[in-house]
Amino acid sequence: MEMWAHIQLNAGSATPIYRQLYEKIRDSVLSGDLADGVRIPATRELAGLLRLNRTTVSAAYELLEKDGLVRGHVGRGSFVARPSAVPQLQRSRPQVEFAELTPRAADAAPSRELISFASSRPAGDLFPVDEFRQTVAEVSASPELASILQLGSPLGYEPLRHWLRAQLRASQTAGPEDDVLISSGCQQAMDLLVRTLIQPGDLTLLEDPVYPGLREVLHREGARLAGIPVTPSGLDLNEAARLLRRERVRAVFVTPSFQNPTGSTLSRTARLELLRLAAEAGALVVENDVYSPLRYEGEPVPSIKQLSQAGGGVEVVQVGSFSKIAFPGLRVGWVLGSSRLIDACAGGKQWMDLHSDQLSQAVLLRFAESGRLEAHRHRVLAAGAARLAAALAACLANLPEGSEFTRPQGGMNLWVRLPKPVDTSALLRTAEEHGVMYLPGRYFAVGRPDPAGLRLSFAGLDEERIARGVAILGSLVAAELRRAAGYGLGNGLSRPATAMV
Amino acid sequence: MEMWAHIQLNAGSATPIYRQLYEKIRDSVLSGDLADGVRIPATRELAGLLRLNRTTVSAAYELLEKDGLVRGHVGRGSFVARPSAVPQLQRSRPQVEFAELTPRAADAAPSRELISFASSRPAGDLFPVDEFRQTVAEVSASPELASILQLGSPLGYEPLRHWLRAQLRASQTAGPEDDVLISSGCQQAMDLLVRTLIQPGDLTLLEDPVYPGLREVLHREGARLAGIPVTPSGLDLNEAARLLRRERVRAVFVTPSFQNPTGSTLSRTARLELLRLAAEAGALVVENDVYSPLRYEGEPVPSIKQLSQAGGGVEVVQVGSFSKIAFPGLRVGWVLGSSRLIDACAGGKQWMDLHSDQLSQAVLLRFAESGRLEAHRHRVLAAGAARLAAALAACLANLPEGSEFTRPQGGMNLWVRLPKPVDTSALLRTAEEHGVMYLPGRYFAVGRPDPAGLRLSFAGLDEERIARGVAILGSLVAAELRRAAGYGLGNGLSRPATAMV
Repeated sequence: MEMWAHIQLNAGSATPIYRQLYEKIRDSVLSGDLADGVRIPATRELAGLLRLNRTTVSAAYELLEKDGLVRGHVGRGSFVARPSAVPQLQRSRPQVEFAELTPRAADAAPSRELISFASSRPAGDLFPVDEFRQTVAEVSASPELASILQLGSPLGYEPLRHWLRAQLRASQTAGPEDDVLISSGCQQAMDLLVRTLIQPGDLTLLEDPVYPGLREVLHREGARLAGIPVTPSGLDLNEAARLLRRERVRAVFVTPSFQNPTGSTLSRTARLELLRLAAEAGALVVENDVYSPLRYEGEPVPSIKQLSQAGGGVEVVQVGSFSKIAFPGLRVGWVLGSSRLIDACAGGKQWMDLHSDQLSQAVLLRFAESGRLEAHRHRVLAAGAARLAAALAACLANLPEGSEFTRPQGGMNLWVRLPKPVDTSALLRTAEEHGVMYLPGRYFAVGRPDPAGLRLSFAGLDEERIARGVAILGSLVAAELRRAAGYGLGNGLSRPATAMV
Repeated sequence: MEMWAHIQLNAGSATPIYRQLYEKIRDSVLSGDLADGVRIPATRELAGLLRLNRTTVSAAYELLEKDGLVRGHVGRGSFVARPSAVPQLQRSRPQVEFAELTPRAADAAPSRELISFASSRPAGDLFPVDEFRQTVAEVSASPELASILQLGSPLGYEPLRHWLRAQLRASQTAGPEDDVLISSGCQQAMDLLVRTLIQPGDLTLLEDPVYPGLREVLHREGARLAGIPVTPSGLDLNEAARLLRRERVRAVFVTPSFQNPTGSTLSRTARLELLRLAAEAGALVVENDVYSPLRYEGEPVPSIKQLSQAGGGVEVVQVGSFSKIAFPGLRVGWVLGSSRLIDACAGGKQWMDLHSDQLSQAVLLRFAESGRLEAHRHRVLAAGAARLAAALAACLANLPEGSEFTRPQGGMNLWVRLPKPVDTSALLRTAEEHGVMYLPGRYFAVGRPDPAGLRLSFAGLDEERIARGVAILGSLVAAELRRAAGYGLGNGLSRPATAMV
């Protein structure tokens, strides 16, 4: 009954529970996970196991029976009746709603058939599980354990703060007046900063397209959002300069290295120019630096926070996280800023969740202090380099002429623009039916939805899957273009895609 | 050098770092932790260890030298010079600011001399550290580990949700339409509920005095707050009824069992009446149920959520947490409500921190599933009963006539009202100088600050400390009353304190 007890259903989904249950069992039968002839639990039994109404389970079984996938034998129960020729799995989701394209849907465990480029997260197959176990054992055995289990400080677990301060000072990222607060990951750091620093009506500049988690927290706090277009070499400084000179801007939010979703990176010169502009305008700079440790090639560029140490009178707040290198299931990030700002954040943090989880803080500290984090990062860099190369090669080989894509030197994401009139939101349903998932451009829009854009998150997939996924995507785009051309909307398909440089 | 490397300084504090360092070393000398004649590190050495400027360390050493607590020997370094008669430790904090009375200050590790009644948290000396280690080892060894380390769902770690749903259904707390979302502790559950359910300007009813973490999140969201007085038998239903009938109330926030800060409990009849009133008014009820598992005596009362299962048309949301029974350093709580509401919360939760820490969710699930949580709860109940009895006995024996205190049957807190003209905020500084800390009534006020009130959190202290702490407090109150009587403000002191019933 082990497998049955672990069926995961989402009561919050728009898909009714009985239909989710039907789909899960059907997929298991079609994939062969449930072998032909296996007995399936009685409705009463499964209802009890999953805490569902019996009628819910009956409704699911009825659909399975109609599909010919289960057969009842009077007095003996019901059994899997796998068709001799397994039909191609048709995903029955009637339509992909925009609201479903949140990480909540995107990060659901993909069925084995789906190649998902949808989630900007590290590869589970690279998790150093043995080193993690060793680390947990060390933390668990330490005399610090009782203090880890007790209520802590809104500022974070002091030994971790101490280690981070030392690291950030050694790299000249933190100045003598700076301090660190531990957040429950980068998302909470953004929420905390926005709630602490931004008043309703404040004008904020952010990249467009942008990580939606930033857009949403700004929106919720009542900020006015001005999206600055992102070019392959980072946010458009001319547009930023125009707004910074003309309007009263409270803060500029920027991810200068391997930006999510575009993968683009601001040069050192551009970072210095942005600092100068922000100083002139009296605007804060909030730098999301979570991807910079994932540089696979090229020379490192100093962070904006590092560059600001030379002076210039602009306050730069930097957000970092362990989640992009280590374990995103452990929610530990941090905010680096002036002591005054960190103190204000601690006041806000206290009412958000008192403080971040201390077990994970202690585990990640030990993981880092022991040198395992850095060793793991090197393995992640090697894999990331190969995956990035595979993604770029696959785009070049498979995307039809007129397609463009960024060419990042690190991070987890690249940005693709498909030829007109392809709409990546409309294409997504077809793509999913063919076993490929991505997030369409609209999901990342601030003020200018890009129906041609899509994000390919490559870091979580091996090279073979990347190649296969992009090939499927390329053929679907080509078919869509042929179809549109039939209606007189398309263009030629003979030349290859080009990298945006 | 071990001890020196672990000196914890708070860069966010109003007290300068050099002074914090001075106080830490001074306290160690006076307490005997640093023995007479022990060599103290050179300024350069300690500055390097703590990542401070050398001048900061020098400033601290200068103060220690002025106190005669360290002595330098040319060419040999500096040494502890403990006075032969250890003077009474004078805490040098110039004044206790109201802002310092947040958990941030209150939860700082107390020096060994301080008996702190300030924090409503479980006793660290009862932590089942060995069982915790065993639990962590089991989770670490489990095949689920890789999925625990990966990005999760805003709803929470599914196996934990499954277990909680089963528990809550078995106790008839959850109905068939209810679902559970995991939050990063009870504080985040409150923040999430308020951000999800409350619009600026919405009128909300809450107990007065109240847990400040609730007041603050409502205040930040722009809610209008109406404080309902709390009597020894819970919130004043007449006043609640008056407001519910007259105003358009969005939600009633209530902690019906062992309320924080008063320890008071609503009877079953009063709970039913509150449900009826809320249904009539069309108001939501948000029930904070974190203390109810800590009943030391008397008959359990069904929760408002349980009572609402009989119908009546009012939506009740319940908040629970592991932190009051198990390990507050692990931030895991939950929200129980209708699937529709949980779905709305998941949308908000996603932008707050994506999801709660999965390592701690998995560890607490294993701790609960293995039966260790329930075994531990029984040990906590035994200790809590003894501590509560000690606190009540000490109040009766030591607080002067005219004092009143609640008589809870569980939880972590009792509420004391001192005779006029004692002001508990003003008294706090004296109390701290005499080694006792508590939180004064003002800290918990919604609309009617009670200068005579204070909270005694007894669960984290053993009986001996409770008796000693309350005795000190009682003598300080008596002295204060004598002093006031000298000015013609006081009253007689011969009769004992009385319990509010």
